[in-house]
Parts: sequence; structure tokens; C-alpha cells
Amino acid sequence: MDRRSFLKTSALGGSAAAATTLAAPAYAQGKRTLTMVQSWPRGFAVLDDAASYMVEMVGAMSDGQLTIDKKAPGELVGALEVFDAVSSGQADMYHSADYYFIGQHPGYAYFTAVPFGGTAQEVTNWYYHGGGEELHDELGEIFNLKGLLAGNSGSQSGGWFRKEINSAADFNGLKFRMPGLGGKVLGKLGASVQNIPGGELYQALSSGALDGLEWVGPMADERAGFQEVAKVYYTAGFHEPGSALAASVNLDVWNDLTPQHQAILRNASMAVTHYQLSETLANNGAALARLQAQGVKTLQFSDDVWDAFGKASAEVMDENMGDEIFAKIRGSFEESLANSASWINKSDGYYVQQRIRVLGG
Amino acid sequence: MDRRSFLKTSALGGSAAAATTLAAPAYAQGKRTLTMVQSWPRGFAVLDDAASYMVEMVGAMSDGQLTIDKKAPGELVGALEVFDAVSSGQADMYHSADYYFIGQHPGYAYFTAVPFGGTAQEVTNWYYHGGGEELHDELGEIFNLKGLLAGNSGSQSGGWFRKEINSAADFNGLKFRMPGLGGKVLGKLGASVQNIPGGELYQALSSGALDGLEWVGPMADERAGFQEVAKVYYTAGFHEPGSALAASVNLDVWNDLTPQHQAILRNASMAVTHYQLSETLANNGAALARLQAQGVKTLQFSDDVWDAFGKASAEVMDENMGDEIFAKIRGSFEESLANSASWINKSDGYYVQQRIRVLGG
Repeated sequence: MDRRSFLKTSALGGSAAAATTLAAPAYAQGKRTLTMVQSWPRGFAVLDDAASYMVEMVGAMSDGQLTIDKKAPGELVGALEVFDAVSSGQADMYHSADYYFIGQHPGYAYFTAVPFGGTAQEVTNWYYHGGGEELHDELGEIFNLKGLLAGNSGSQSGGWFRKEINSAADFNGLKFRMPGLGGKVLGKLGASVQNIPGGELYQALSSGALDGLEWVGPMADERAGFQEVAKVYYTAGFHEPGSALAASVNLDVWNDLTPQHQAILRNASMAVTHYQLSETLANNGAALARLQAQGVKTLQFSDDVWDAFGKASAEVMDENMGDEIFAKIRGSFEESLANSASWINKSDGYYVQQRIRVLGG
Repeated sequence: MDRRSFLKTSALGGSAAAATTLAAPAYAQGKRTLTMVQSWPRGFAVLDDAASYMVEMVGAMSDGQLTIDKKAPGELVGALEVFDAVSSGQADMYHSADYYFIGQHPGYAYFTAVPFGGTAQEVTNWYYHGGGEELHDELGEIFNLKGLLAGNSGSQSGGWFRKEINSAADFNGLKFRMPGLGGKVLGKLGASVQNIPGGELYQALSSGALDGLEWVGPMADERAGFQEVAKVYYTAGFHEPGSALAASVNLDVWNDLTPQHQAILRNASMAVTHYQLSETLANNGAALARLQAQGVKTLQFSDDVWDAFGKASAEVMDENMGDEIFAKIRGSFEESLANSASWINKSDGYYVQQRIRVLGG
């Protein structure tokens, strides 16, 4: 579906139509600065770590010819307004999580994470070698965006609760923050689900506006301070088994960049994921130990609860299948995931089982 | 230990001493070409894929100001001579696997893979955020090298055999190819272990010079054609759970590069790992299915065999502890691995178990 036919047939045409207002970007004496709006406050662990590494490395690799001017929420637009701002040309690029934008198109869920989806490695396998990047571009054509994945949080925690979850019924009526399709799954279990930007979560949980939330994982969650206001923490979740971050660029801006600067941005985005994901995973263990030392109780959801997540997830995925692009993306993703997982379970998976059995751990 | 005291106390001084013969590198009209000697023939899946991506991206990101001239084995030096060639300044950089060079220093094992060590992600966590890169540089100081990791094969297969391995005793007398410390482990089980370069393995297995071998994994092994001469394939192994490749640079050459070109090389090396590892893991499942269709029987070693691997691995690691740098690297690696694994088992690991339980797979 091209942009024109999408605009004709979709109620989502607003932001896409606005893309035509873009002023032509330009290099001045060989230099170009890209304004990047991001969905996280400065200093937010994991997320801003990825954005900051991107800024630093693009500057270093281009010898200062291509620089990124980072804008935190409120400095130019709000945390969840970054997609429309870049689509319309108000900003040059964003750093965010594309599943915040399932209102623009449900297919964007796949470019962050979907319920019962892939781990960070499985998502990467699909994105670069299973058709994912091309589908990101196909979706991006509609909204005048060149998609780049830049960062990954790893498998996200099940979240913070004031009370233990002993059955799926305990989600009924719970005021809970979870973005993306995972939030729709909890909605099926009766939760009152909201998507609140990261910078506003501590306040929402403290005030009782939320009964619980999921954010990222121990390193990011500790920095946000949720342990001060909730004491029950589930370490594994169904909703985001490997959440990619996106550093997507206005397509007119992208097309105006030199091939050198395009190569720098694309490879920087890969280096960001490699560098930041490993930072996150290197630090989560120690962060979790500190949370436990502050009285946080860590748990896993029971098999019954996981079964309920599975049933509701399948319903949510199926409800989106009327959208042709969503169906195409889902088919591509699930084919790649099946291939990836079939091997990984027989190699890494079996190895880690044996390592634990032989050495303990 | 600095280079001088190492030379005084070590029999390995030969190649390090030769480093002083290096001619000063130079930019000519702002351009620099680095001669890269690699341990794999052109077109070798996984390994040459990583090297080729490095060459392409460094050229693109530097707009042709920094180029890499790739030399396959025999074009300048032999497959296993690349370390000494770069240490001495005969070539500018190499693409290889550092565990080929445990004869130069046993600590180099950790910059590829060690028995019962880390998965690709766990190795990455250590390298960039647990002190690994600094230790690679400390070792590199001795040999006049700046270490960069560029590529990872993922968890390597247990290998190719003519007959099934029913007990650890079946390794006794087996002529088997396995480099690094893993090879020393099989030696403890009575195998006659050799390190033969990848480009010579098919011939060695065909001729009966080898009874069996491990190379990489389905994608690389299928391309090498081992299925034509052996029919028993173990999909998981103890020896290389996440083998990093290295693109290390002569230290004088590195120090002469501009900060921009250093940033390009370092970030390119990360992008290489991100891009090539995902390519490998995206393709291994289908490659394994094709191998099976050609009559290859795929198996896992029994728990008894894994226990024997575990016991012999601990002995091999302990035998190297008299070397101060080896002991330091081992301590750093194991501390990082324990931290990484403690979290990953509770998040990704638990998630994947539940995904398999809920969805099948």
C-alpha cells in the first residue's frame, strides 16, 4: 500500500498528510545537524543511554560533520508526540519505542515487541535477515519515515505491584501502565490500562493513579525509584521479551543525507544496540540484588497466569489481522521466529541448561 | 605486566620483539589503506561474512578515506600466522579468532570462547561492560595490538563424527580438530587433537587424517560440505558457547589513526557482530533442516558426556592459573558471567521456557 492509497482509506491520514509541509533539509558548508526528539528524560537509564551513545558516536564517526541535537520531552514536543513531529518534519528524527504508535498503525508493535514475541536476538535476526527492516521501511513510507532500530532493553520485567498476583483474576480492575499490544492483553484480563510516559511514572505510582506498572528491568527501574513505592516485582513478563528502540528519521531528511552519513547512522544504530543492550544486561543482576536488599520481593507469575496471558495474547493478535500490513508483518515475523528459535533452542538453549546442570547456577 | 617485563620472563618474546621493526604508517592525502590478513578463505560463510561486512562498512562510513585491503590465507601469510604478522607490522590488522593464539598467550582464549563460558550475549556484556575490552588491550600491549571484537558465531555445534559418541571413552584415540582450550579438554579425554585451519578441514576429514571435527554451526558447516563425509552431528557443544571473532590492529597503526577513524573501526566492529551474528542465527535453522534432509543425524551428547566435559574443563582452566594475566582475565570473566547469567536466567531464560510451554516449540 503506498502513501496515497493509505491516506484515502485510513483515518490515520492526519500525521502523514502533514509530512508534506517539510522544508527542504540542507547541509551548510558540509555540516548538518539533526534535531532528535526523544521519549525519555535525560539521564534515564537504558533508554537515554542508547540515545546518548547514538549522539556521541555519530558525531565521532563523522568528525563533527553530522551532529544530533537531542531534545528531551517538553523541550520541543511531548514524550509521545515525537512520531508525529518527525513524520511532519517538525523534527528530523526521534528516539523512542515504536509500539507507542500503534494508534498510528498497529504494525508498529513489531518494531518494539509483541506479546510472546522474540527475544532481543530473535528480533535482531528478523530485522536484518528476515525481512523486518524492509517492512519497517514499507510502514515508514506511509508516514514519511526511515526506520532504524537503535537500542534494546532485553526481556522486560513483568512489573511492579503492590500485591502479589495469584491468579489472572487479580488483574481485574487493576490500574496498570503497559503500552503496546501487551496493554491490550491486560485489558482483556480486566485491567484498566494506560500508557504513561516514563518520566511521569514514579509520580503516578506514588499518587495511587496507578496500582502497578511495568517499565523496563532492574537497572532502569531502580534508577526510576519504583522500589520506594511498590515492593512486589515479577522478573519475567509475557509482553516484551526483547524491546527494540527506534531512531527513525524523517524520510525527506534521510534521502537528503550523503551515502556516507546514511551509512554512519545505520551502523551507529546497530552499534548502539550492541553496546547498550550489553550494558543493560551486565548491570541488571547487581541492580536486582540491590532492589532485593531494599525489601523488594521478586517472583515469577504462575503457569496458570502465563496460560491466561497466552490465551488473551492470541486474541489480541488475531483482532488486528484485518489490517493487511499488520498481517504481512506478523507472518514475516512469526516465520523468522520459528526458524531462529528452532536452532537457538538446540544450541544456546541446550548449552545453558547443561551449564546450569553441570556447574550449578 | 608491561611489555618489557613480559619479554624478560617469557619464552613468547619472539613475535613481540619483532613489533619494533614496524615502519611508521601514514596517511597519503588524507587516505589510508589497512592491509588485513584473515584466517578464512574468501566466501567462507559466517567468518568471511563478518570480515567482508567490516571492509564494506569502514569504507562507506569513512567515504573511502579509510579502506581495508583483505588478504585471505596464502595471499600474504598463512591462516594461523596472522597474529604474528600484525604484531610485527608485516600487516596492519587481522580478522581471526584469538583462541588460535593461546600459544602466544593462554589468556587469548577468553577473547574467542572458553569451555563452559559465556553465550555470545554474555561475552559481549563482559567485553564492553565488565572489563573485557580493557583486558584485551592489556594483553595487546604485550604484543603491540589494539584488540577489537568483530563478529560472533553464536553457540558452536558439538561437531561432526563418523560414529555416535555414547560415552566419554569414545573420545579416546579419536583424531579430532578443535582449537583453543576446548581442544585441551578433549585431549584429557584421550583424543588426538589438532588445530587445522578452516580452509583445510574438508580435505582432512575426507582423507581420514581426521575422524571428526567441530567447525562453527549449520550455516558455515553446510557451506564447508562436511555432510558429504560425516553423518553424525551434535548440535550443542561445551567448548565454544559464543565464539567472538577479532579484528585487531597493530598498535602503532592504531595510534596513528585519526580519532574519527578509530571511532569508525570500533563502532564498525560492534555493528559487524550485531549484523553477522544475527545473519548466522537467522540461517542456522534452515541449514540444519537441509543437512537432515541429506541424511545427517542430529544428536545431543548425554549428561554423562557433559559431566566428563565439565570435569576435564575445570582441570584445563586450573592448569593455566599459574599465569598471572590468565588468572586476572579468568576472574574478571567469571565474575561478569555470574552477574549476567543470574539475571538472564530469571528473565529471557524463564520467558523462553514459558513460551515453549504455552505455545509449544
